[in-house]
Formats: sequence, C-alpha cells, structure tokens
Amino acid sequence: MSDHKRRAGGTLAPKLTNANETHLPKAGVHGGRPVSIEGLRRLSGYLIRQAQLFVFHDFNQRLAPLDLRPAQYSVLSVTRENPGLSQMALSHVLGIGRSGIVPLLDVLEARGLLTREPASDRRSHALYLTARGSGLLAQADVLVQQNQDHTIDKIGRRNHEQLLEILEVFGRPE
Amino acid sequence: MSDHKRRAGGTLAPKLTNANETHLPKAGVHGGRPVSIEGLRRLSGYLIRQAQLFVFHDFNQRLAPLDLRPAQYSVLSVTRENPGLSQMALSHVLGIGRSGIVPLLDVLEARGLLTREPASDRRSHALYLTARGSGLLAQADVLVQQNQDHTIDKIGRRNHEQLLEILEVFGRPE
Repeated sequence: MSDHKRRAGGTLAPKLTNANETHLPKAGVHGGRPVSIEGLRRLSGYLIRQAQLFVFHDFNQRLAPLDLRPAQYSVLSVTRENPGLSQMALSHVLGIGRSGIVPLLDVLEARGLLTREPASDRRSHALYLTARGSGLLAQADVLVQQNQDHTIDKIGRRNHEQLLEILEVFGRPE
Repeated sequence: MSDHKRRAGGTLAPKLTNANETHLPKAGVHGGRPVSIEGLRRLSGYLIRQAQLFVFHDFNQRLAPLDLRPAQYSVLSVTRENPGLSQMALSHVLGIGRSGIVPLLDVLEARGLLTREPASDRRSHALYLTARGSGLLAQADVLVQQNQDHTIDKIGRRNHEQLLEILEVFGRPE
C-alpha cells in the first residue's frame, strides 16, 4: 500500500468501482483537472510540514508495537546518552516546555522505562533509564532506522545526506 | 530576542542573575557538560521535526495579527488557486482528513473568508474565497514570505534552494 493511500485514509478514496459514484470527483483532481498547489510548493515551510507528517505517520505505524511516539523516543534517547540529566535540561534541549515534558515523563516512568531520582537540588530530578527502558529503546532503534530508510527510499540517499547537512543547524543544543 | 530564547520560554530560563539560584544547572547543560543528542542528530525525522517547529513558531507569531494558522493559510491559498474545488479534493491534496477539514472550513466560512456553494453533486460543495478572504490572503502572503526569509536567514539561501528541491516530492498532489 502506498504512503499516499495510507495517508489519505479510506474515507477520502472515492469508490471508482461503484458505477453510481463514478461522477464523483477523483480525490486530488478538481473538475477533471489536477488541483494546483504551486503557491504552497514554493514554501519550504509547507514542504517541511508535509515531510514531517510523512515521517511521523510512518514512525507511528512502525513503533506502534512498542507503543512509542516520536517525543517519547526522543526522551528515552537523550536520557540514555546523558544519564542523570535534569528534567530542565531535557525539556530545554528538546524544545518541549514544562507543561509538555512533565506528562511525558509521568507516562514513561509509570511504564517503568525511566526513573526520576532526587538530585542534590530538590527542585530538580536526575533522569535515568531503567533496564526495561534500555531494552525497549534498543528495539526501538531498529524500527527508527527502518523509519529513516523509508524516508531515504522516498527522497534518495544522496538527497537524504544533503538534508541532514542542511537541517543540522536545527539539531544543535544551545 | 533569539528564536532559541523564544522557543524555550521564560519558565525554562534559569535566573542566573539571582545569587540564590546560581547553583541551578544552566538549561541545555547537564552537570556542567552540554547535553549530547548525537543519536537524534543523525535522524532526519528529528531534524525535520525541529525545523517544522522553528518554522511554525515563527509563522504563528508573524501571522497572529491576521489570526491565521498554517493550515488555514494553506486552505485559503489552495482555494484561491482552484476556485470551486471540492472539499474532498482540498482535504486530499492537503493530506487533512474529513474530521480535520470540516472544522477548518467552518471557521473560515464563519469569518467570512470563504464560501461553500452547493455543487451539482449535493454531497459535495464548491469552495470559493470571498473578497474579504482574498484581501486577507494577500496580506498573509507578505507575512508568509517574511516567514520564509526567516528560514533562509537560518540555513542560508543556497541551502534553502536545495531544501526546496529535496523536499519537492512531498509537495506533489497525486
């Protein structure tokens, strides 16, 4: 099944095999003409958004067996790389505000994937993966690599390498 | 104010000028060391997401005076380019499901920016911008170009042109 079809979802796909409905416009065409989106296609913001939806859609499907969403994977990955980091440092580096990071950590802790240990500063907490969290993350790494391969298939390996270089500036913790 | 600071928000920034709080870890550092996110930085999906957040954050700030969000701008732009297109064709080309497109159109119609005219097929509607919608969209175009310039400033003009080419595949209506 193509990504296109997956993304559009069944409710949008006209049943062209049904004779009573063949007068319906084909999705993506407009009175027999393809829908034009030249205005949007010149905007990197639009293309970046569409690319992000493509990646996340595939991510969520692939990682569903592990019940991990992109932000959860990011939290586990950063915690593995920086054992004992504070909630504040984590939220800052991921660009997720306090109101977003707390429920994220609550869920991961309740699932036994990470722990919040009291730090010397009582207002903070030091984050660590549990053994279970490490194990799940190792499984997730394999699926996330497949998710990346899916993007590489879409745009080509050389373009993908260029993309990593162009967007590198967005992955610099400050 | 840098984007970085804007994104992080005031609640995350430690008050380093307050002597009582200088022992707090600096946001983005971890026990005096910078937080490492090497794992995530190798993932295009992570970088694309961070880029998208960067673009949308700026978009929402710039377009706030017009009260237009990215998806609303997209709907108006596609409707201008394809007067009379159906709700189905619109939702398909933007990759927004029916449950997302209906409230979007409801809001834009209530604001007098577009109209849904009955089409020959009663189950569909033909979408048109109103004069007011056209006027607002023309104002928005200027701000959206500034939003794009902001991205160009961030990654450089040559990189931006390459980015448009690499991501072009995500802007093809099918």
